[in-house]
Amino acid sequence: MRIDIITVLPEMIEGFVHESILARAQKKGLAEIHLHNLRDYTLDKWRRVDDYPYGGFAGMVMQIEPIDRCISTLKAERDYDDVIYVTPDGEKFDQHIANDMSLQQNLIILCGHYKGIDQRVRDHFITREISVGDFVLTGGELAAACIADAVVRLVPGVISDDQSALSDCFQDDLLAAPIYTRPADYKGWKVPDILLSGNEAKIKQWEMDQAMERTKRLRPDLLKK
Amino acid sequence: MRIDIITVLPEMIEGFVHESILARAQKKGLAEIHLHNLRDYTLDKWRRVDDYPYGGFAGMVMQIEPIDRCISTLKAERDYDDVIYVTPDGEKFDQHIANDMSLQQNLIILCGHYKGIDQRVRDHFITREISVGDFVLTGGELAAACIADAVVRLVPGVISDDQSALSDCFQDDLLAAPIYTRPADYKGWKVPDILLSGNEAKIKQWEMDQAMERTKRLRPDLLKK
Repeated sequence: MRIDIITVLPEMIEGFVHESILARAQKKGLAEIHLHNLRDYTLDKWRRVDDYPYGGFAGMVMQIEPIDRCISTLKAERDYDDVIYVTPDGEKFDQHIANDMSLQQNLIILCGHYKGIDQRVRDHFITREISVGDFVLTGGELAAACIADAVVRLVPGVISDDQSALSDCFQDDLLAAPIYTRPADYKGWKVPDILLSGNEAKIKQWEMDQAMERTKRLRPDLLKK
Repeated sequence: MRIDIITVLPEMIEGFVHESILARAQKKGLAEIHLHNLRDYTLDKWRRVDDYPYGGFAGMVMQIEPIDRCISTLKAERDYDDVIYVTPDGEKFDQHIANDMSLQQNLIILCGHYKGIDQRVRDHFITREISVGDFVLTGGELAAACIADAVVRLVPGVISDDQSALSDCFQDDLLAAPIYTRPADYKGWKVPDILLSGNEAKIKQWEMDQAMERTKRLRPDLLKK
């Protein structure tokens, strides 16, 4: 799959694209992530992408023109499944959406910055608005990075051990069971005996019981889905 | 305020710490963000931080020893308000939590990686578990970055225009109204007349009506709080 991220601050997430699971996925030829600096799509010598909002409100607003130019350039090169805008008032991103997106071919993610983007961009260019949570970030870059990470790791072959993603939290609407590694005794804090027993069936049952207990206690809402 | 982020992959978020709002906050002396490479707290020559899970499960688990050493070193230097672990089964991060955290002095954020961390770390060192959403990331780094960004931007003085943060989504449990900037007419798509009217009282009323309408339509749950 291919993800094109449009941003005014590519330096903010370059390290992420080159050092994370995305780097591995790209080396394996399983994903392509491209960062586009919105300033490259301006025509004035100040490379300006924002302006004051109409109505006398506070903050700055990203203008429609450079965004139109950038999205139109990309769309002329290939078809996109979605042009996503990351915004706190969008559809709440979750593991189900991540699963669906991991099956798509080409996605554009537009990162807002400053006070947001001109509403006409949302009305005419954006096909899906996604939120990573009920909190406000300085820009959409980190949200776009979260989406890219959550989605690309689900593309078959990206994570070396397929089991590893399938047993994640939320894949069966259950929280994951507690996990332990060596040493078995650390300063008197011990690993549960059952995990050292070698009894596979009992361990499997213990894992399921723990996942269920933890979900009931912490996230009963997941069980009602 | 000071945030210490413990990670096995500092390169993934170094750009974020040096290029974003966090860079500005640090230059102004309003925040300090420190990245700690967990491998610097290992004692073996392979700088190993993970091991196989007990019970025969898939994936790798972060070990307790280097984490203990890192957290203990930091705690010997200063008092911390919280030692946070970012995990999808934690308390859901939102703007209210961001507001509270922005008043704290010192925070540690531990980023999990691989399949997660030894449960004994959570039982004995972690004072607060936070989730940014119902999705699974390759590691906690992006979640930690989201939390740091959302919190630091609320520290007074970090954002130049205080009004800008106060009128954000969620600050009054309402979604923000649409915003527009120049040009007033772009390819026939026009800015609402009211915003060009210069009538401050009417514009203020329009903004409130739009925020209320958008919240009712997209997020009625916010109005029931």
